[in-house]
Amino acid sequence: MTVSPFPDALRTEFISVLYETQRSFTEALESYESTQTFVTTPWEREEDGHDYGGGGVSMLLRNGAVFEQAGVNVSVVKGTLPEPLSRRLLDNNEFRGRALFTACGVSLVIHPRSPKIPTTHANFRLLTVENRWWFGGGADLTPYEVNEEDFSHFHAVLRRTCDIHDTNAYLKYKKWCDEYFYLPHRGETRGIGGIFFDYLGRGEDIEKAPDYYRFVESHCYALPSLYLPIVDRNKDKTFTDKEKAFQLLRRGRYVEFNLLYDKGTQFGLATGGRTESILMSLPPLVTWDPHEKEYYSPNEAALLEILRTPRSWSASSSFA
Amino acid sequence: MTVSPFPDALRTEFISVLYETQRSFTEALESYESTQTFVTTPWEREEDGHDYGGGGVSMLLRNGAVFEQAGVNVSVVKGTLPEPLSRRLLDNNEFRGRALFTACGVSLVIHPRSPKIPTTHANFRLLTVENRWWFGGGADLTPYEVNEEDFSHFHAVLRRTCDIHDTNAYLKYKKWCDEYFYLPHRGETRGIGGIFFDYLGRGEDIEKAPDYYRFVESHCYALPSLYLPIVDRNKDKTFTDKEKAFQLLRRGRYVEFNLLYDKGTQFGLATGGRTESILMSLPPLVTWDPHEKEYYSPNEAALLEILRTPRSWSASSSFA
Repeated sequence: MTVSPFPDALRTEFISVLYETQRSFTEALESYESTQTFVTTPWEREEDGHDYGGGGVSMLLRNGAVFEQAGVNVSVVKGTLPEPLSRRLLDNNEFRGRALFTACGVSLVIHPRSPKIPTTHANFRLLTVENRWWFGGGADLTPYEVNEEDFSHFHAVLRRTCDIHDTNAYLKYKKWCDEYFYLPHRGETRGIGGIFFDYLGRGEDIEKAPDYYRFVESHCYALPSLYLPIVDRNKDKTFTDKEKAFQLLRRGRYVEFNLLYDKGTQFGLATGGRTESILMSLPPLVTWDPHEKEYYSPNEAALLEILRTPRSWSASSSFA
Repeated sequence: MTVSPFPDALRTEFISVLYETQRSFTEALESYESTQTFVTTPWEREEDGHDYGGGGVSMLLRNGAVFEQAGVNVSVVKGTLPEPLSRRLLDNNEFRGRALFTACGVSLVIHPRSPKIPTTHANFRLLTVENRWWFGGGADLTPYEVNEEDFSHFHAVLRRTCDIHDTNAYLKYKKWCDEYFYLPHRGETRGIGGIFFDYLGRGEDIEKAPDYYRFVESHCYALPSLYLPIVDRNKDKTFTDKEKAFQLLRRGRYVEFNLLYDKGTQFGLATGGRTESILMSLPPLVTWDPHEKEYYSPNEAALLEILRTPRSWSASSSFA
């Protein structure tokens, strides 16, 4: 086995996929809006050292008719990591000093205005630490009511995209997603899941890098077909104040997960990323009510039941 | 020096102070409200083992005219701690197994409706782990505009209460408070501080326990004079939508601190406390806006400046 640095050419190609994903997905989202557009904010990361730093491009749409907040960020950074993080990522307690790292990825969080449209999150990234490298990412759905057609669609697209490359991948990464997006203090998953994977290719032969690259690339390109049909099906439905109130409460769980448990948030804040870009995942308007359980409707209680006991949403990849 | 367990009689006395603080402070807050009252929720903590468990009494007032949310909780729990937490609290890496602990404390977070009235938080507690014991706690203020009279009043009461027992305490604990309630990713303190202390009496002779007990007791009894004059001075002021919007943004920082950094929240969630009681610190309505900085008024910008560079608010304890 050859342990070699990740090839520059493939990393460059991946970065172009990230920016292309950002461009095409924001363009698609913008087409739903008549007055609001994405605001683009390039940012630079500061770190002393020859060619350390990097930065990214954050794109944010606020107060849309369909999307209350949509953020799609690309970051491409390079530098050194704190020693404890270096040890953990290299899985080597003997490591001394700050490990050299690069990270590039696209990250998106879409908070629709209507509780009839689920929130979605996706993130695809390549991390290199010294001579090690791996891909990570995933996509997941956070609904505010039970809609089995939506849930099955989302999982079927993910399954199909996985199956092109590896027919064992979907079930493995679906399970990982349910386990990762879990709030132990609530006994609930954040949503109805999707896929989550990390350390993809870590320690493997460099010859395999293109396979993993293509797996992740396919998921980037599948994003519009993954989410936009769900938006289309639900965007013109009316909703009640009570349904909106439930959405705001559930957004509280979103905040709890992202600040208490999400490794991406912690990694971003620990490595000097742009705070406003990292925290664009936080919803624009949120409520907490310690007495919320007294007010659940039957559909809301049914959703909670699903979040307490993750289900299978795609028995096979054959779907209409 | 005698390392002895904390005396049961003094612990019992402290617990009665906690409940008395809860009773009197909620009564005082309720007197501002005409329609809303505190809802009292007793809860029990589950842990297998002879007399393990305990619980608490949570009191919550929501949707008041003056207080949008006010929570005052007492908890009195007993049981065992996970090994890593046991080691950390005993400051002993050799410790094996789960340490026996007891914790009792009062915790309050008051989120007023008007941005003219600052949010306040206070917490006073006694922790015992095996044969070690210590007090911890503090009180701090989170304003939404610059009001030097309020800030000086708050710090002067804390200073006076400290000075009765130890004229070195205030400055030490004021500094600790500024350092503790700090959001590194924002470069801001959560508010204009107050006092924060921990490990009070740890490793000291049991003869000193009553001194520390009286220090904490004095702060419990000072709570009404600490906060209510600030409510009185500001509650009838009118405020604009823009000022309210800024308050909701600042509440986002409150959530960020409590979920990302607060040790009390993490300790509570890790030791099986009641989630709704621990998270009653989270405000009822919160906003995030990655572009918020573009909309600050001069007063808001001045407040931010204070949060970036903590100031002295009480030069001495002599005040009107």
